[in-house]
Amino acid sequence: MPSESGANLLARLRELAAFSDEPGRLTRLYLSPAHVAAAQYVRAWMQQAGLDATIDAVGNVVGVLEGGTSMQRVLTGSHYDTVINAGKYDGRLGIVLPIAVAGHLRRTRLRPPFTLEIIAFAEEEGVRFKSTFLGSRAVAGCFDSSDLASIDASGTTLADALRAAGHDVSAIPAIARDAAQVACFLEVHIEQGPVLLDAALPVGVVTSIAGSVRSIVAVEGRCGHAGTVPMALRRDAAAAAAEMVLAVERRCSEQPGLVGTVGRLEVPGGAINVIPGRCEFSIDIRSGSDALRDAAAADIGAAIRSIAERRHVKADQRRVLEAASVPCAAALQDAWAASVLRITGHPAMRLPSGAGHDAMMMASLTAVGMLFVRCGNGGISHHPDETLSTADAETAARVFQDFLLHFQVSP
Amino acid sequence: MPSESGANLLARLRELAAFSDEPGRLTRLYLSPAHVAAAQYVRAWMQQAGLDATIDAVGNVVGVLEGGTSMQRVLTGSHYDTVINAGKYDGRLGIVLPIAVAGHLRRTRLRPPFTLEIIAFAEEEGVRFKSTFLGSRAVAGCFDSSDLASIDASGTTLADALRAAGHDVSAIPAIARDAAQVACFLEVHIEQGPVLLDAALPVGVVTSIAGSVRSIVAVEGRCGHAGTVPMALRRDAAAAAAEMVLAVERRCSEQPGLVGTVGRLEVPGGAINVIPGRCEFSIDIRSGSDALRDAAAADIGAAIRSIAERRHVKADQRRVLEAASVPCAAALQDAWAASVLRITGHPAMRLPSGAGHDAMMMASLTAVGMLFVRCGNGGISHHPDETLSTADAETAARVFQDFLLHFQVSP
Repeated sequence: MPSESGANLLARLRELAAFSDEPGRLTRLYLSPAHVAAAQYVRAWMQQAGLDATIDAVGNVVGVLEGGTSMQRVLTGSHYDTVINAGKYDGRLGIVLPIAVAGHLRRTRLRPPFTLEIIAFAEEEGVRFKSTFLGSRAVAGCFDSSDLASIDASGTTLADALRAAGHDVSAIPAIARDAAQVACFLEVHIEQGPVLLDAALPVGVVTSIAGSVRSIVAVEGRCGHAGTVPMALRRDAAAAAAEMVLAVERRCSEQPGLVGTVGRLEVPGGAINVIPGRCEFSIDIRSGSDALRDAAAADIGAAIRSIAERRHVKADQRRVLEAASVPCAAALQDAWAASVLRITGHPAMRLPSGAGHDAMMMASLTAVGMLFVRCGNGGISHHPDETLSTADAETAARVFQDFLLHFQVSP
Repeated sequence: MPSESGANLLARLRELAAFSDEPGRLTRLYLSPAHVAAAQYVRAWMQQAGLDATIDAVGNVVGVLEGGTSMQRVLTGSHYDTVINAGKYDGRLGIVLPIAVAGHLRRTRLRPPFTLEIIAFAEEEGVRFKSTFLGSRAVAGCFDSSDLASIDASGTTLADALRAAGHDVSAIPAIARDAAQVACFLEVHIEQGPVLLDAALPVGVVTSIAGSVRSIVAVEGRCGHAGTVPMALRRDAAAAAAEMVLAVERRCSEQPGLVGTVGRLEVPGGAINVIPGRCEFSIDIRSGSDALRDAAAADIGAAIRSIAERRHVKADQRRVLEAASVPCAAALQDAWAASVLRITGHPAMRLPSGAGHDAMMMASLTAVGMLFVRCGNGGISHHPDETLSTADAETAARVFQDFLLHFQVSP
């Protein structure tokens, strides 16, 4: 890669960030005018890089760099939709970087010995229609046609939004790739967390994409007058919940590779002079290892029951989500690690992904491998403060190029 | 007292509960049509009991049983307004019970050697105009004329509401009693808590009305993705707040006569998959002893600072209220205790009042003494589940009558 490639990548990511549904901040929801225009822009970049580029029936932008004689292709990509008030790198780095590398390879006639397909997935965040991964689902053959009836906040169905953007809904099933013709799926993505930053490393190899269990807990105690009920006679739902929140934190801090979060916490209708009779909170537990996660969830459930019993309150625990973790293929992890060692001179750090990614869906089609790139600002993401350094972008591009040049597909 | 007096008291309290602003539940806000009608009803009861009864310029109903030759009167009473969706006993027991006792004394010619004035205060709860104790403020000479400009939810001023109910606003200052002509103020009130219930005692003597300090605490940490930030790198505002909530509970449980409550607790805009960047909660600390309360507030403030420092979050503590406690006169406590012993055969339990009462305002005019009566249902109050047994109502009436027959005023 030429030495200015990091700066070029960041310049392109800034350009892409100009396509927004809202003035003054970046929001690009699936099939909005800005989203449709961004797809055209990405296709033009692919074409400039010398790729055959098309837009499919869900809005995925697909660029192909032909090469080798194998019937198996290597797929790579990430998504170009955003959350509301987003940063500039989430998803889009995994589109812009492969296009730049493919363009460089074509210009320098260093083509890899296989066909490379770069996919800019149209939808991953699930903001507009509350269905996530619509782009990668279609490619992986997991698109659920019942999702076409999903409506957005204004009542428009997904089917109507697709038609309004000029898409042929009946062509969606044909987007699905034939697994026999796919060697693997690769995704380059910002880490969206502080682990690489903390370890002072530019890139890392993802071991697995964490599964999660989510619960809603409702604690019921006994409300009372804040002045008249002695402490020993209280059944304070908020104090009980506070103890439970700390139990989640403590249990998930005991083992690496495990995280637990209480993101929602509320005394509904709470008043300054009333002992809370009810307190509600959410629990989200994740791990790259389902066994680790399930053991933690079981221990936390038991701790909540025990706290409730001791405090004479009721705690209703309702599980609202249970998703298995998705492992990254060991051979791909090793191949990434070898490239990281060759390019950076340091052994690769391996780390799980706590967030979901398109690779999660693609795993139902083929082996997946992910490269994480360091974020700045404490690892903040889904926020305008999301950062990526030019040096790290360039390192990631060099690692990706090295990977492609060393990777072997079946003949 | 005749043996059916408890049942009669409860029947009258049920009758009075029929005056409501809302069908199906009891809500009687200051100067509503139901409130004005209730005042007429209370005046009629006073007249039936043989008292001289009038309604003053803020809506207080005043009944006088003349007696003795002293220029000093004994005042007693409580309030007849209610909270929204109230119970039947809060405030009103302290009106209905003295009327019944005065009627009995008059009929049996057992008059106390002083003039007894029973006041049904028009406003104590502060629901409609957000100003509390309007009735007892006027009697104690603490009515603040700037309150006349207070508006209710519909924009009506207090002054206009008073005029609409037929009151002469200019006559309010004349309601204030001359301290030299008042021997003391007595208030009989349900406990609104579980202490007497827990001690299996029908009545108790109030030592003081608790003062309170109230604060709002805003914890600021760092928001983040629930999947991607390892536990050790988090600055979770909700987990920090949870530890602070337990610090309030622990410190206030260490000493009797002290209570601390976190009534509001919220992660604003919390989401199940986001590490809370902010968490807000309230603290209400009360004690009959200001020194005890202030020491606890200082320790809790320090604990919050220390938790915040250790967790690398900011905690902004803002004090929103500081009210001194009001002691009940020792001589009146002893007089109540003597009556309790004579009537029940057991030494009186003495306990602080955690809630505010009209006696708090009346303390600025004269010595105050309060008798608490046991609540059922765990001591619940400000709620339709508020209960009072006929036996306890009767015991309280006998204690009150005994008090009046033994109490001496200056000649």
